[in-house]
Amino acid sequence: MALIVQKYGGTSVGNPERIKNVARKVAKFQAAGHQVVVVVSAMSGETNRLIALAKDVASNPDPRELDVVVSTGEQVTIGLLCMALQDIGVKAKSYTGGQVRILTDSAHTKARILNIDEAPIKKDLDEGNIVVVAGFQGVDEHGAITTLGRGGSDTTGVALAAALKADECQIYTDVDGVYTTDPRVVPEARKLDKITFEEMLELASLGSKVLQIRSVEFAGKYKVKLRVLSSFQEEGEGTLITVEEEQNMEQPVISGIAFNRDEAKLTVLGVPDKPGIAYQILGPVADANIEVDMIIQNVSKDGTTDFSFTVARGELDKAVKVLEAVKEHIGARSIVTDRTMAKVSIVGVGMRSHAGVASQMFRTLAEEGINIQMISTSEIKISVAIEEKYLELAVRVLHKAFGLDVAA
Amino acid sequence: MALIVQKYGGTSVGNPERIKNVARKVAKFQAAGHQVVVVVSAMSGETNRLIALAKDVASNPDPRELDVVVSTGEQVTIGLLCMALQDIGVKAKSYTGGQVRILTDSAHTKARILNIDEAPIKKDLDEGNIVVVAGFQGVDEHGAITTLGRGGSDTTGVALAAALKADECQIYTDVDGVYTTDPRVVPEARKLDKITFEEMLELASLGSKVLQIRSVEFAGKYKVKLRVLSSFQEEGEGTLITVEEEQNMEQPVISGIAFNRDEAKLTVLGVPDKPGIAYQILGPVADANIEVDMIIQNVSKDGTTDFSFTVARGELDKAVKVLEAVKEHIGARSIVTDRTMAKVSIVGVGMRSHAGVASQMFRTLAEEGINIQMISTSEIKISVAIEEKYLELAVRVLHKAFGLDVAA
Repeated sequence: MALIVQKYGGTSVGNPERIKNVARKVAKFQAAGHQVVVVVSAMSGETNRLIALAKDVASNPDPRELDVVVSTGEQVTIGLLCMALQDIGVKAKSYTGGQVRILTDSAHTKARILNIDEAPIKKDLDEGNIVVVAGFQGVDEHGAITTLGRGGSDTTGVALAAALKADECQIYTDVDGVYTTDPRVVPEARKLDKITFEEMLELASLGSKVLQIRSVEFAGKYKVKLRVLSSFQEEGEGTLITVEEEQNMEQPVISGIAFNRDEAKLTVLGVPDKPGIAYQILGPVADANIEVDMIIQNVSKDGTTDFSFTVARGELDKAVKVLEAVKEHIGARSIVTDRTMAKVSIVGVGMRSHAGVASQMFRTLAEEGINIQMISTSEIKISVAIEEKYLELAVRVLHKAFGLDVAA
Repeated sequence: MALIVQKYGGTSVGNPERIKNVARKVAKFQAAGHQVVVVVSAMSGETNRLIALAKDVASNPDPRELDVVVSTGEQVTIGLLCMALQDIGVKAKSYTGGQVRILTDSAHTKARILNIDEAPIKKDLDEGNIVVVAGFQGVDEHGAITTLGRGGSDTTGVALAAALKADECQIYTDVDGVYTTDPRVVPEARKLDKITFEEMLELASLGSKVLQIRSVEFAGKYKVKLRVLSSFQEEGEGTLITVEEEQNMEQPVISGIAFNRDEAKLTVLGVPDKPGIAYQILGPVADANIEVDMIIQNVSKDGTTDFSFTVARGELDKAVKVLEAVKEHIGARSIVTDRTMAKVSIVGVGMRSHAGVASQMFRTLAEEGINIQMISTSEIKISVAIEEKYLELAVRVLHKAFGLDVAA
């Protein structure tokens, strides 16, 4: 017998029929001898409906009261799922975040979990109940309702699994696992059976939006076994996200390829090559709340240098305006932009112990005539910026070169 | 400075624009120097929407979980109203039933209030807040969400007013007060400035559905000054519902005329006139959950008698079936029915000290040729059953005869 925490997202509980499906799915796990705690999101569309209502009554809704309103979305789902379970003869009991009690700080709309009182849930489980908990919400020390921010239901699931020392936390979504890359770009993309937390973090932050990043960090920190599964398929083991040590030695060097087509590049030409120049350029950009991704500084020539960085494409015009305002002050000759950049990243814990991963990546791209404009690396990731038009080609050839294609 | 509890029903908060109107109305009371606690219902239609969802997932929704789902309706409204208040510069704080804490028994979907912790609300009021409380809901000793049943928001308002020792509990509805009778039947119907709790109870139970009966009982028991007002009119004092002692001596004998056109009469002919015959007839009817209203037993003749009673028209066929089944056993000759009955009641505490009210009522009806078929009386009410076709005429002539018409 195992203790399993299962989290079902908004699409999985999007209408009464789907809620009844989830009830049947959950009941099967109990029938197989497991104890099950279920975390649910609001029915899809519900959170947006509630936020729209709030914006209709107040131009800038008070965060405390917004949490009161928005948290009702998950509250409706827990009640409905418990009814559906009881309707098929399964004992079930619902808990709001406040009822559990999931204690958070008071940062309304983006609260952080401080503590979970797991005792009442354990008691209910031991009495044969399925326990259904509202995701995304908690309560602060004053008893005010808080929410964890978008996607917070994943975090609730992982935090509950940690508090209950659950054997596994299963995240049910509309995909059946984590893939080596986007199957829409590379039809040969393969579902991964396992991936490490670190790799998942790199893939998630690069755009594979399967799991909320915070929940992955949380799971890594508390060593919760996390599994991504499809709520619409009966079979399948999904992808297990686990600590590195558990991986066997035979694993591939590269686990996946992430990409982002929404990049733009700015180059500041002919700036004096002196200490502090990077700060003089990037300081005003950061002050304008524009996030900078990749950064390179060219080799100096005649006392001046060129300085390039990438931003999200939607922020390019804003960034240009910021730089034009400081251009004279920093002594730059001119500013040039490229609106059609893309970023491709290979991710894998295996590259730590394997030399030559970077050179293989660069050679593969060179053989296809794809020019690398910028490079950045971390311990388990290498990213390159290329022209957007080569993006699909780059992902495809790298996927094949690193042996990620489905075994023929 | 007064402490006022105001309750706004579902129609009054039916959409964002109306919620903003309520915010402006409430803010005016605070600006006039009062402390205000606001109790709100769910936005109109919301409770029905939630119940329909529940019925979609379970044929017979679990009462505990139904309360979890349905209570979200009021929770949304409290958050929205607080946002709207803050948006116009007024400090406001929301409370769910559980947060107050409004302690109830565990009778889900029809819980009764046991205790209210008024201390935190008083503190918030003293700090200059408008306090907004979710109507209709509470929490049991185990922390489970409960609801008070339909119309329970009125009861929440009155109970809060009692706990806070408020100067007045104002119930805002879509009518501007309690009328001497239905203005659609008698255009000369007059809004009452004052009415006693007892009269209000008789009028309410007879079909003037302005206030939930339980809230009126509650207000009477705890001597809460209750006022019914329109939420859609700026001016007007509404109707004050108060204890009898406060009424002055000049008040009219009759306060109002209630009526119900939805009655049907059954007569059991030729039953043996012996002890226990009433029980033998009405026992099976009660067992079938059919509510009986007026009852008369004719004078005995030759050892047999006729026995008549009224039921709601929709229950007539069911009642007939019940009686046909026991007819032989009780030795009745036959059963006759009249499907087109109506009931007219005159109500007023003044009739206690005024003889001749009944005879004036009967004379007035006789002068119009209206035959009285049944009569029942209480200390402050006289009801007669008449043919439905005479209903409007009866109400009009009685309204005039007892001096209730608007002063010409």
